Amino acid sequence: MAGSVKNLAILGSTGSIGRQTLQVVRNLAGRFRVVGLTAGQNLELLSEQVAEFKPEFIYCQKNENSKLITQNCKLLYMEEIAAHPDVDVVVIATSGKAGLAATLAAVRAGKKTVIANKEPLVMAGEIITREAKKSGAQLLPIDSEHSAVWQCLNGESLPVKRILLTASGGPFRNFSAEQLAKVTPQQALQHPSWQMGKKITIDCATLMNKGLEIMEAQWLFNVPLAQIDVIIHPQSVIHSMVEFVDGSFKAQMACPDMRLPIQYALTWPERLPNPELPQLDWTKIKELSFEKPDFKMFPCLELAISAAKTGGTAPTALCAADEIAVNLFLQEAIRFTDISRLVAGVMTAHQNIPHPTLDAIMEVDKWAIKKALEIYPWDKKC
Amino acid sequence: MAGSVKNLAILGSTGSIGRQTLQVVRNLAGRFRVVGLTAGQNLELLSEQVAEFKPEFIYCQKNENSKLITQNCKLLYMEEIAAHPDVDVVVIATSGKAGLAATLAAVRAGKKTVIANKEPLVMAGEIITREAKKSGAQLLPIDSEHSAVWQCLNGESLPVKRILLTASGGPFRNFSAEQLAKVTPQQALQHPSWQMGKKITIDCATLMNKGLEIMEAQWLFNVPLAQIDVIIHPQSVIHSMVEFVDGSFKAQMACPDMRLPIQYALTWPERLPNPELPQLDWTKIKELSFEKPDFKMFPCLELAISAAKTGGTAPTALCAADEIAVNLFLQEAIRFTDISRLVAGVMTAHQNIPHPTLDAIMEVDKWAIKKALEIYPWDKKC
Repeated sequence: MAGSVKNLAILGSTGSIGRQTLQVVRNLAGRFRVVGLTAGQNLELLSEQVAEFKPEFIYCQKNENSKLITQNCKLLYMEEIAAHPDVDVVVIATSGKAGLAATLAAVRAGKKTVIANKEPLVMAGEIITREAKKSGAQLLPIDSEHSAVWQCLNGESLPVKRILLTASGGPFRNFSAEQLAKVTPQQALQHPSWQMGKKITIDCATLMNKGLEIMEAQWLFNVPLAQIDVIIHPQSVIHSMVEFVDGSFKAQMACPDMRLPIQYALTWPERLPNPELPQLDWTKIKELSFEKPDFKMFPCLELAISAAKTGGTAPTALCAADEIAVNLFLQEAIRFTDISRLVAGVMTAHQNIPHPTLDAIMEVDKWAIKKALEIYPWDKKC
Repeated sequence: MAGSVKNLAILGSTGSIGRQTLQVVRNLAGRFRVVGLTAGQNLELLSEQVAEFKPEFIYCQKNENSKLITQNCKLLYMEEIAAHPDVDVVVIATSGKAGLAATLAAVRAGKKTVIANKEPLVMAGEIITREAKKSGAQLLPIDSEHSAVWQCLNGESLPVKRILLTASGGPFRNFSAEQLAKVTPQQALQHPSWQMGKKITIDCATLMNKGLEIMEAQWLFNVPLAQIDVIIHPQSVIHSMVEFVDGSFKAQMACPDMRLPIQYALTWPERLPNPELPQLDWTKIKELSFEKPDFKMFPCLELAISAAKTGGTAPTALCAADEIAVNLFLQEAIRFTDISRLVAGVMTAHQNIPHPTLDAIMEVDKWAIKKALEIYPWDKKC
């Protein structure tokens, strides 16, 4: 089956999703050849990955690439790797807006583009989906919720009645306002179901992450916002659901382990056994529960939905403000409850640009970062 | 869209599934023309249905058809209606073995055959599926569990890892042996989630029904018995699940209302809105729970699995014995716990015939009825 070996580039290979993608690739021996790897700052892990997978192309943000060049790798920018003729599949496992340009490059080059990074679609979903339509690029999700929706849509036709994204509710689901105000970064970094990077873990605790997922779902599945809902499901067994026009629901379920949606995206439309993964045992799942999200206690969800409805550059302003706010919280410079306050401040000041160009998006990103840092020193203003 | 109107025959139109099928047909105005209706004893309701739907062909077991003949209907046997060139879709909504010959006739004539009646597949699954393969007839399920599995398999490829049939567990899920022995027919007829006919309601209470469903699933989806499991799910929200080879599960969910699977089978591969149906509201579903089935307290499930494993005429003997046992229980001639005892007695005496002909199946059916009635008078023997 040598002819079916696919050439894979993983952008952000040293992060949580990148590392798990490489684990999946190891288990799918003979199906993928890793031809591109890129990292941010973790040169050491990238070196190990390069030694093991021997990619042709690499990129590291950290400016000390000499060690890697000696290993017969060609240094290319992420966008160049994403669009390179030798690459068949691009996994966007970068974080924040770092993967935006490369996502667009992959999509424009018609690659099978497997997306774990939320910001590209949130910030530039309109541009990315338009370009994918032009080039014929496939946009496949890795996020467990979107993978669930995608699996439920298998063999079904659009339109659907509703997409129901499940949310664990994070570690503070039942906290009072007083308790929320006292939450420490250490507490917020303890996600009840998933092991993830710091930024996304805090976003899960504020429910901002679920708001970003609504926007991703809108673009990935071409479903109007009004037909995308969120339900709190603390056990994280049901990863999301689709309601069809006849009132029938389908749900996808699995142990919370990102290697399953990663593998699904890589091998789709095939499913392959993966004995390494933990198995759901229904005789041990005593119950699954569901609650409405508490918009009052978790205002980030409403801020995100509002930005999604506004469209244009609003999601970009939201993302940038949230990035700053989460960083300040992690540095203990602001309280947990200040995250939404800071984002709300930026959103109030934001002047929306409908159907923005990529340049306009990047301008608003810069503006929102500046604005958030202007608003931040609470003690001087409040 | 006159060209797309399908000619429908409903065998067993006065029963619970038959009546609900006609409700669905009313709501799908213009898509189906009812050309055949058959009933057992309920001549009065059949007359009403004939007046409303004006079928070309009718049949009633009750020997007083003169009233109906005057309405320009042609009297045909069920098998003749099922195989008639004017019929496109046959709904098998008969009960017990009454629909077996007609199912086979429909399948042999290559009809789209929509099956609600369990016994034909349980007794003659091997013959029916072989004939369907020859003629190209589609066999589509109406049972909510099999409809759920079918919906989950949409767009997926076989083999799957496992089919997980959910069972409400019936009204006596947590009863002790002493309590079970005292159960009255009236209690047993109170199903916690579904409104159904008497026989199937008692079969749900003994879990025999779930055993029959395992056999149906085996034939409908061509999945080995070892890959079909049962899990108790008292809320009857998840109608069944499929586990795929990668460890991912899909579940289908809806309010317990047979009109949804009926409509799905009739309109498949399309899904159509049906505003008459109750809608699942996830904000009101507080929890879904799961338990292992208790084989000791509900021995009918194990008897059915054992008959399924034996194959041949064993499922026929099981069905016949169960029919007699349930009738005796409904007449208060035997206790609830005697149902499994009587079935077990017949199964012990049964001499299996592998790969039986239809004649052999009908012979075993007669033998098992006789045997059950021989065993029944407990007080003389025990």
